[in-house]
Amino acid sequence: MQFLSDNAAAVHPRVWQAMRNADAPQPPYDNDALSHGLDAAFSELFERPCAVLWAATGTAANCLALATLVPPHGGVICHREAHIETDECGAPGFYTHGAKLILAEGEGALLAPAAVTAAIGAIRRDVHQVQPHALSLTQASEYGRVYRPGEMAELGGVAREHGLKLHVDGARFANAVAFLECTPWEACQGADTLAFGCIKNGGMSAEALVLFDPELADLARLRRKRAGHLQSKGRFLAAQLLALVEDGLWLDNARAANAAARELARAAAGRLLHPVEANEVFLALSADERAALRAQGFAFYDWGEDAARLVTAWNADPGHVHSLAEAIGKL
Amino acid sequence: MQFLSDNAAAVHPRVWQAMRNADAPQPPYDNDALSHGLDAAFSELFERPCAVLWAATGTAANCLALATLVPPHGGVICHREAHIETDECGAPGFYTHGAKLILAEGEGALLAPAAVTAAIGAIRRDVHQVQPHALSLTQASEYGRVYRPGEMAELGGVAREHGLKLHVDGARFANAVAFLECTPWEACQGADTLAFGCIKNGGMSAEALVLFDPELADLARLRRKRAGHLQSKGRFLAAQLLALVEDGLWLDNARAANAAARELARAAAGRLLHPVEANEVFLALSADERAALRAQGFAFYDWGEDAARLVTAWNADPGHVHSLAEAIGKL
Amino acid sequence: MQFLSDNAAAVHPRVWQAMRNADAPQPPYDNDALSHGLDAAFSELFERPCAVLWAATGTAANCLALATLVPPHGGVICHREAHIETDECGAPGFYTHGAKLILAEGEGALLAPAAVTAAIGAIRRDVHQVQPHALSLTQASEYGRVYRPGEMAELGGVAREHGLKLHVDGARFANAVAFLECTPWEACQGADTLAFGCIKNGGMSAEALVLFDPELADLARLRRKRAGHLQSKGRFLAAQLLALVEDGLWLDNARAANAAARELARAAAGRLLHPVEANEVFLALSADERAALRAQGFAFYDWGEDAARLVTAWNADPGHVHSLAEAIGKL
Amino acid sequence: MQFLSDNAAAVHPRVWQAMRNADAPQPPYDNDALSHGLDAAFSELFERPCAVLWAATGTAANCLALATLVPPHGGVICHREAHIETDECGAPGFYTHGAKLILAEGEGALLAPAAVTAAIGAIRRDVHQVQPHALSLTQASEYGRVYRPGEMAELGGVAREHGLKLHVDGARFANAVAFLECTPWEACQGADTLAFGCIKNGGMSAEALVLFDPELADLARLRRKRAGHLQSKGRFLAAQLLALVEDGLWLDNARAANAAARELARAAAGRLLHPVEANEVFLALSADERAALRAQGFAFYDWGEDAARLVTAWNADPGHVHSLAEAIGKL
Repeated sequence: MQFLSDNAAAVHPRVWQAMRNADAPQPPYDNDALSHGLDAAFSELFERPCAVLWAATGTAANCLALATLVPPHGGVICHREAHIETDECGAPGFYTHGAKLILAEGEGALLAPAAVTAAIGAIRRDVHQVQPHALSLTQASEYGRVYRPGEMAELGGVAREHGLKLHVDGARFANAVAFLECTPWEACQGADTLAFGCIKNGGMSAEALVLFDPELADLARLRRKRAGHLQSKGRFLAAQLLALVEDGLWLDNARAANAAARELARAAAGRLLHPVEANEVFLALSADERAALRAQGFAFYDWGEDAARLVTAWNADPGHVHSLAEAIGKL
Repeated sequence: MQFLSDNAAAVHPRVWQAMRNADAPQPPYDNDALSHGLDAAFSELFERPCAVLWAATGTAANCLALATLVPPHGGVICHREAHIETDECGAPGFYTHGAKLILAEGEGALLAPAAVTAAIGAIRRDVHQVQPHALSLTQASEYGRVYRPGEMAELGGVAREHGLKLHVDGARFANAVAFLECTPWEACQGADTLAFGCIKNGGMSAEALVLFDPELADLARLRRKRAGHLQSKGRFLAAQLLALVEDGLWLDNARAANAAARELARAAAGRLLHPVEANEVFLALSADERAALRAQGFAFYDWGEDAARLVTAWNADPGHVHSLAEAIGKL
Repeated sequence: MQFLSDNAAAVHPRVWQAMRNADAPQPPYDNDALSHGLDAAFSELFERPCAVLWAATGTAANCLALATLVPPHGGVICHREAHIETDECGAPGFYTHGAKLILAEGEGALLAPAAVTAAIGAIRRDVHQVQPHALSLTQASEYGRVYRPGEMAELGGVAREHGLKLHVDGARFANAVAFLECTPWEACQGADTLAFGCIKNGGMSAEALVLFDPELADLARLRRKRAGHLQSKGRFLAAQLLALVEDGLWLDNARAANAAARELARAAAGRLLHPVEANEVFLALSADERAALRAQGFAFYDWGEDAARLVTAWNADPGHVHSLAEAIGKL
Repeated sequence: MQFLSDNAAAVHPRVWQAMRNADAPQPPYDNDALSHGLDAAFSELFERPCAVLWAATGTAANCLALATLVPPHGGVICHREAHIETDECGAPGFYTHGAKLILAEGEGALLAPAAVTAAIGAIRRDVHQVQPHALSLTQASEYGRVYRPGEMAELGGVAREHGLKLHVDGARFANAVAFLECTPWEACQGADTLAFGCIKNGGMSAEALVLFDPELADLARLRRKRAGHLQSKGRFLAAQLLALVEDGLWLDNARAANAAARELARAAAGRLLHPVEANEVFLALSADERAALRAQGFAFYDWGEDAARLVTAWNADPGHVHSLAEAIGKL
């Protein structure tokens, strides 16, 4: 009974079907009809013009976005626990050619406007210090927290006011939108770029890099090729993305994952380290308690000495979820 | 009737099947059983210990190899028409952090030992000139030519003698081995790294980076992650590679593609710009002749003003091939 | 009466003289007799074999050292207020091709061994996190604090134990040695590389990059050339370095600067933010007090809202120092 | 009797004097009055607004210019024998983060417009090939040849027509202007950036990076700092540049060097490999002849098997020049 992560979960049957359907002769790279259809599909989803590139990983999508927004001598303000800082092996430094991640703090891996302005304010405007060019937020955050539309709007305003571009790491963007019950744009409003996650949400090997300024697409395409991410059978990536965004499959999947996390959260009420808003549950669990759960067949990661992280996927087995909730309740 | 390229051809049914079989719960990244099986499968294939990493494109596999072999201040000797020089949008410069491609010349995009030693000899051994650290050969070459085992051995010797590492770009390595009817190792002997192509040969989205010095694997893995190429559902890439190398499917596919190219070559005997050894046919064709063929439904690329390139894939339709051969014969 | 910084102070007459003496025909770059003499001069100074390269700035010397010790995918542990982090405009990221500065905390911009081991301990040993390859310490620190020989030895031990190289940013190394009254090696023991500062200490345009592993020199020389730092009239840089280290001029200069700082410190006893060990004085001064001092002709930098930084140079005018000390005493 | 190079020649007395005069208290970096005066001095010289940054080497000036004009994924068209290609140890790749040098051919290391358009024309306008962003010309060329104002204008037109920026490597720009007897601007017209050489022409350690679009200066300043080239006592570099351009010292020095080269050229009339226009003389000389000259005390570099390169500096000794001319005549 697996609660380790959503990142290696099964591929949704409709994604498989779309991939099979894509196995007909098509021009290579992103010259196929499916890849050509991405801009329209996402423009409709976000109710504004956007250009969309597929990429094989969230790291690639994030870093292609940052490389498009930030020069090598620039900086990116992000949370100290942002995925780009802690879990991408320096990929932002590679893609941006050495731009600096400027770290800010906030509860639940969320950044408040005041934390962003404090980070900006600490930088002297001279040639000796790296100047910030972008702000990167994670929606939902690395602790499964979700920025409200108003917060996102305010953060976008702070960014614009200081001449910063705004990138949103949306590895679990679907979970955030499902939680907020708002439009996709409301959940990332003000963003210049969005790494729209699919792999954790029923996809296999495709994330969408959404550029809300379509003029940036040419640059991002050159960078994607240069990074070895322009796949010759790109139609199979486009097919995954289209299958997920068509007919709302991405939200259905996210709702299922969120619901499972909520069930666990209810069972763990007194133990929660963070409010559960998306599909991650961080809870206080002693070593003995963790061992007890594992003895019952539940797999999950430790989170430091006295806590654990549970992640629910789109295909969380209801029986497993009930059993785990029950087991937690009994601890 | 498509002869544009093999790079967007259909995915082989056994590859599809292997991918479906891989859709069971597994640890993420390359911690799954299939990824773990790559080293053994390729070590058996090459009859020597090797470490293998999957990567989504040939560009990524080539450049991860070069980044592993060459420091940022170093150089790579390659043919002026090598894919890494002409068709990767500067990816080698990106991955190696600015190492220089040092260009040499040779018929059919092949490098003779003398051309390599001449390129080396032209470099002063001082701090003002970029010093070569590797030699990169393409097997089969960008013109569908194939290094014989003896030539490969001699080139490997030249590399070692001058302290250079040897990388082989094997985007169409299967076609070379199928042509040579030798062991895989004989076709790349002396190589330190090999980008073993699968995508043009029935795969979907996986190439194999083969490291004949397994000690290099840790470095290559860090670089892969840093380049955003560590996919969380890597089991689907491993499945493709294993499906191709098990039971010799890779060679069966390559033989089929080569046979189709040979048939076209026979029909175009007087027009060939290069001997046809793998699955590419470069032939003199006037603009009128090209137009005539296209009017009959054949798709292919121009190659300069007075020539064309025909590429045959693993699934080349025998009827299409016969028709094209006949049409060329009648020109 | 200038207490802004030592970084733009006058050039010492003996340095001028040495430069004039160097204006005779010599081979270019670092092939001249003076540049050739650096290794011997510094090997004697440090009582062990070392290789020495001149560089035009401390930033260049620091970053050439880091680029020699750390691969692009690696990390460097340093203090959150280290000069390489705060005042080099991302030069470490440029020179190392994106390696990460991993920040640790400590009083007075000094790092205690526990802070270093905590920083190391917080890093998972996997491919997702940047792995540390070096530790960088500043001697004297950015707050004019000085590591004692025993502390330096302990920190070097921590580095070795974790497989890290040790770099010492010695922009004000002379001031540290003058304070410690120890041998130069004792003040940086365990270091693999040292940026030995001269410009703030009577030089014009030359710092010494000292490599305690002379085998690294070839690599550092290539990197220096590639960074545009191989000056064709390098003899003028070598002349500066030799003039300073011969006959102990570097220590005489540093002692003068330190003595001036001590005089100010005595006058400001109750106001000191940091113990004064080298040639920098950080003291609590209200806006009114700062204005009062400036009205008397003293120039210095604010340090936040309620403090100021005073720096004394090798040529600090005793009269100016007395006057400032007196003025502070009277506040 | 030294004809090896002009790059390590003595420093002109007026340059020394200017440096001594600069040794008064001044703000650090480029905040001093001398550095502030550069824009005006060069704007007058070039009869148009320009921004000027000092840099310690020609390599740094060239590469800072290229990094300002060309993105990491772009390319620079230059001659196959351009200094940036052959003698900067890959510094352009370092500074531009991997941009590609696209090589073109031409007599005397000069590029004709047709060679440039051919190089551009050979590049497919797609995402697979590196797209050119700049043209780099060397004035005078690496073989001491000089572009005429009309040629420069035409090349500038070619660049603009194809959307390329134009950089001029002017390590020996003074020699070109002295030869042409035109205005400085006529000798580089159309340039966006010029590396204006001083070190080979009586300076010590300062070249001028001239930006004819002053808006680029902020970017270049950030890059200079990031490359460790922002010297804290920058006033000494500014002093050198001002001393050379004031009162035409730069042209006086260049005329002297050119005159010496012309004298040698007359003596070597039948042996010249290239017309002598600046201060370099390439002449056919057998090994025996070279040995004979060296036996008479003349120092110079071999140029391949059967030739030699003689370079004359601003302070070429007339007696030495006569002697060498005579000795060549007698061979």
